[in-house]
Amino acid sequence: MRALIYDGQLRLDESLPVPQPQSDQTLLKIRRAGICNTDLELIAGMYGFSGILGHEFVAEVTQGPADLLGKRVVGEINVACTRCDFCEKGIPSQCRHRTTVGIIQHPGAFADYLALAARNLYIVPDEVSDDKAVFVEPLAAALQIIEAVHISPRHRVVVIGLGKLGMLAAQVLKLTGADVLAVVRRQKQAVLLESWGIQPVAVSDLEAQSAQIVVDCTGEASGFADALQLVEPRGTIVLKSTYHGLPQANLTAAVVNEIRVVGSRCGPFDAALRLLKAELVDVESLIEARYPFANALDAVQHASQSSALKVLLDF
Amino acid sequence: MRALIYDGQLRLDESLPVPQPQSDQTLLKIRRAGICNTDLELIAGMYGFSGILGHEFVAEVTQGPADLLGKRVVGEINVACTRCDFCEKGIPSQCRHRTTVGIIQHPGAFADYLALAARNLYIVPDEVSDDKAVFVEPLAAALQIIEAVHISPRHRVVVIGLGKLGMLAAQVLKLTGADVLAVVRRQKQAVLLESWGIQPVAVSDLEAQSAQIVVDCTGEASGFADALQLVEPRGTIVLKSTYHGLPQANLTAAVVNEIRVVGSRCGPFDAALRLLKAELVDVESLIEARYPFANALDAVQHASQSSALKVLLDF
Repeated sequence: MRALIYDGQLRLDESLPVPQPQSDQTLLKIRRAGICNTDLELIAGMYGFSGILGHEFVAEVTQGPADLLGKRVVGEINVACTRCDFCEKGIPSQCRHRTTVGIIQHPGAFADYLALAARNLYIVPDEVSDDKAVFVEPLAAALQIIEAVHISPRHRVVVIGLGKLGMLAAQVLKLTGADVLAVVRRQKQAVLLESWGIQPVAVSDLEAQSAQIVVDCTGEASGFADALQLVEPRGTIVLKSTYHGLPQANLTAAVVNEIRVVGSRCGPFDAALRLLKAELVDVESLIEARYPFANALDAVQHASQSSALKVLLDF
Repeated sequence: MRALIYDGQLRLDESLPVPQPQSDQTLLKIRRAGICNTDLELIAGMYGFSGILGHEFVAEVTQGPADLLGKRVVGEINVACTRCDFCEKGIPSQCRHRTTVGIIQHPGAFADYLALAARNLYIVPDEVSDDKAVFVEPLAAALQIIEAVHISPRHRVVVIGLGKLGMLAAQVLKLTGADVLAVVRRQKQAVLLESWGIQPVAVSDLEAQSAQIVVDCTGEASGFADALQLVEPRGTIVLKSTYHGLPQANLTAAVVNEIRVVGSRCGPFDAALRLLKAELVDVESLIEARYPFANALDAVQHASQSSALKVLLDF
């Protein structure tokens, strides 16, 4: 089979064996996959990753239990041990012994086939197209913001960093009825945000300490600094992206203004599928380009452009 | 009157006029005062402060309303406007227009007299000595930890940085029934902590990701790094001290492990007085030395030693 591999260098290998599923695994034939900023960070060598990339996908089950066979599915990317204290607490995404599809010690989905634990799969309803289903993983991650923090219509929420994930976060935050503002520099994003009823703004448009909640999707020290400037005393900053290196952070401001900073990562796949089925989130407008998997290297190149939204791989 | 002034240089001025209280103010004759790390930071020029230092004190009311006149009092250090959104929400310590005794735009308590708003005063019960009452402000700040975060006997709590404030924080945390461990390097602190039933440990004694809550009282980037190492996924780090400069912080770890970071500052004076009256917190053991106010410069020198606990000024 074919697979996009990073092992210090990025290459499309066309002669890999199809994986043999273990007893708790299914074999998935990948239908469509999406390129995430995390993939680009792995390719930049940031986390010492080596192997098959990819964790946003929709697939068909070609080997596995009868109730899954032939079904279109998406897959929770954290493969949990089922036995540690976090698994027992019902938080498998924080399993102490987890592997993570295409990120930590687990082959990824930029391949013709992927072997993945059956317990990680969610069947995709017929109403949700492949183009939509491929967004379930990042949409679930965006939904984790409102799992981690209670946000209500009384709140002003500012989103900083309107890239692939930020554009999903803004829509999810809008669902709460809060007053959502999005700090955006690009016209493409501004037009889409306005079409969703979300006001695009510049940081300089906003009063200091005027938002109850700020969601930082920038992954940059400057984003966190902006968040600290915009959040009001006793307010909350949600960290939604990993950061490059060790950013300098004004922790003193967090003490003096009694700010809460909440890290947030993976989220609920079932809720994401339900929102897509109900058409409550617009993901198709975020598709920037699509490439056949044979041209995966071009697709990665495209996704690496700083203005790029979602680039898809068709199998 | 005499006052300890920092205006680029530290000096004891002996010829200042006694302040004239405004209509909402009382005149306080200071009885005893304590030197806090914040004072040492102001003297180091960290916050551009200029004026009379000091914010931990117990005093006698010599001018003011009849119900306060002649009473021993302590004073909330944030002087709030009473009208802004935070005052209206009942959070005067975050008043948008506040001044702060001896810290921000308000004369401090290292002086024979201090004019302070009557609404800021709390009468000290007879059972609480001056030596105890002078700890009300930092004890209230320690109590704010358990106002900001729900801590229960199911939790393991690690305190890092067992200085003046950390030693109060450890005792307050112990009140919750949680399993409290204190990361400590000095024998003096270790002996006291053990006498309070709190286990002194080294960071190297502790498993990574083994505490639900870590309280960082170090004010140093290394303290925050230790806290990130010790806190378990979905756990909470409480920031209790201001930090030197802009520390580098591993915000990526906070995202991946979904950590909550909670800044915490001033706390409830009424609860602090009640705990002292009930003898639930041992503050007298923290008194390192006492100096007559005439020797305030020596007292500051003593308090600046890195091993020093509380140094008091007697008036």
